[in-house]
Amino acid sequence: MPKEFDLIAQYFTRPAPEKMVGVGDDCAIFSLRSGHDLATSTDLLLEGRHFFSDVDPYLLGRKALAVNLSDLAAAGASARACLLSLALPSVDEAWLAGFSRGFLEMADAHHCPLIGGDTTRSLDHITIGVTVMGEVPRGKALLRSDAQEGDDIWVTGCLGAADLALRYLSGSLELDPQRLQASRAALENPAPPVSFATHLPGMAHAAIDISDGLAQDLGHILKASQCGAELMLANLPMHDALRGLSTDLQNEAMLAGGDVFQLCFTAAATQRDALQALAEQHDIVVHRIGRIVNGSGLRVLDQNGQPLLLAHQGFDHFA
Amino acid sequence: MPKEFDLIAQYFTRPAPEKMVGVGDDCAIFSLRSGHDLATSTDLLLEGRHFFSDVDPYLLGRKALAVNLSDLAAAGASARACLLSLALPSVDEAWLAGFSRGFLEMADAHHCPLIGGDTTRSLDHITIGVTVMGEVPRGKALLRSDAQEGDDIWVTGCLGAADLALRYLSGSLELDPQRLQASRAALENPAPPVSFATHLPGMAHAAIDISDGLAQDLGHILKASQCGAELMLANLPMHDALRGLSTDLQNEAMLAGGDVFQLCFTAAATQRDALQALAEQHDIVVHRIGRIVNGSGLRVLDQNGQPLLLAHQGFDHFA
Repeated sequence: MPKEFDLIAQYFTRPAPEKMVGVGDDCAIFSLRSGHDLATSTDLLLEGRHFFSDVDPYLLGRKALAVNLSDLAAAGASARACLLSLALPSVDEAWLAGFSRGFLEMADAHHCPLIGGDTTRSLDHITIGVTVMGEVPRGKALLRSDAQEGDDIWVTGCLGAADLALRYLSGSLELDPQRLQASRAALENPAPPVSFATHLPGMAHAAIDISDGLAQDLGHILKASQCGAELMLANLPMHDALRGLSTDLQNEAMLAGGDVFQLCFTAAATQRDALQALAEQHDIVVHRIGRIVNGSGLRVLDQNGQPLLLAHQGFDHFA
Repeated sequence: MPKEFDLIAQYFTRPAPEKMVGVGDDCAIFSLRSGHDLATSTDLLLEGRHFFSDVDPYLLGRKALAVNLSDLAAAGASARACLLSLALPSVDEAWLAGFSRGFLEMADAHHCPLIGGDTTRSLDHITIGVTVMGEVPRGKALLRSDAQEGDDIWVTGCLGAADLALRYLSGSLELDPQRLQASRAALENPAPPVSFATHLPGMAHAAIDISDGLAQDLGHILKASQCGAELMLANLPMHDALRGLSTDLQNEAMLAGGDVFQLCFTAAATQRDALQALAEQHDIVVHRIGRIVNGSGLRVLDQNGQPLLLAHQGFDHFA
């Protein structure tokens, strides 16, 4: 490792939290609360594929951890700690300062200290690897396979904005500055319902985070739970940035748009009031968008109760 | 994710072990034995930097996990599970078959099931991210900071062979076929003393795995433990592949050569017999190579008790 790369560690090394062994030993070490399982997830983010080269490094640092916290949320787990691997083509101190500030700010906000990782020089592009570890009461983790017939289907937050920004940034859609600003914030600064989700075990049945698009991700729940679903188009929480656009674009963005990092979960109808109250406590919005039915596959019903024809490749095989 | 990439998962997806949630949900989930801490480590391996593009994918799969198991060994932890992230420029089924066979074989051998990860398409090179998780009796993890004055310094296995192969493969050294074969096996198929190491908590004090070179890695122990060390050159376990080469090359390879993935650890002199017996039980070799002394820095003594002049950049600042 070139000496200059020792500098990188300085941006990320902080004293380990009490009772943890952190950065600087062969392993990071900590304990779980008794009666809890470990929940863990990992993601690899590649420059030019998962993020644009000119993205604000501060926002990228936030998002690199947020997308992993989103996976913990989907299991109903509380964050405990994270590991960060960075491969960088060169030591760019301005980039490191921004990225580390964003990453560590997100880590602090969610009590998920950075306790280990790896830094190395890459040949050309930036690669970011994040592993998060959390804990969930034993046997209570939310799984994709636990949806039950008759369950309500819920989503947190709003849908479609990140997709709009992605279309703009990849050159396939023009957007006015105001719409761009609103949708770009959704793409670059996602806010998964981390704290809310830790209360879902015992209240919700199945859950998944929306990364590839609502239809596709809900499809994973349906497949794993061997059931079908009906969504009411009119109940989908459309992001304000989509108002006034064509109906087709709105529907595609809401149903097939990825990079949402909000939760889709199912729960018995008896939980409606409790879930609404929980969402209010955590200052987030939740919407009931449909229900789990006998059978298989996803049907989206329009205002007249007629099935929508889903043509977009992102969800056609779930229609 | 392109459809063809769904194929990748098939090479790595197996039924989750009992009481674990594995590949195919948002998080992997498992429990630790009560009274144990979690030990975790992560590594990023880049094509062209950490491995040659034409390396046998089977051996690469083994090594990708082995280097992480080596970190668990350095903490005295037992492997519990691992995560694998793969970024590949294309779907090369022969490569995937070889890599997955090697990786899963190593996982099976060390009871470290693959329970999650991430696959994605990269722009050009292969990137491999591995996270291992293990468990160690609470508060008993081996740390770099626990070496004590008067401790013996031990190494497992032999030294210098991987460095020889690296020099050959990077074009800086000629090797006859026999020497190449022996040294290349050490580089490409490391065998960290995983099972042996799980018995070290309570017997050993400080430990580290030798990845950057004995002098440099022992230097991390000395710095963290605020002590010095004396090594006896004659006691270093030289790999057979080094016999007959120049003394300078032998010394450099043993003291500064990386990619060893054996352990350097310290223990009280009262543990000598017990450690030798433990090594025999686990069918590995251990050598006592020096001792921890008051002060700071590393001195290597030759047969006459004279300090060796350490000129190689890999260890000069520890001399």
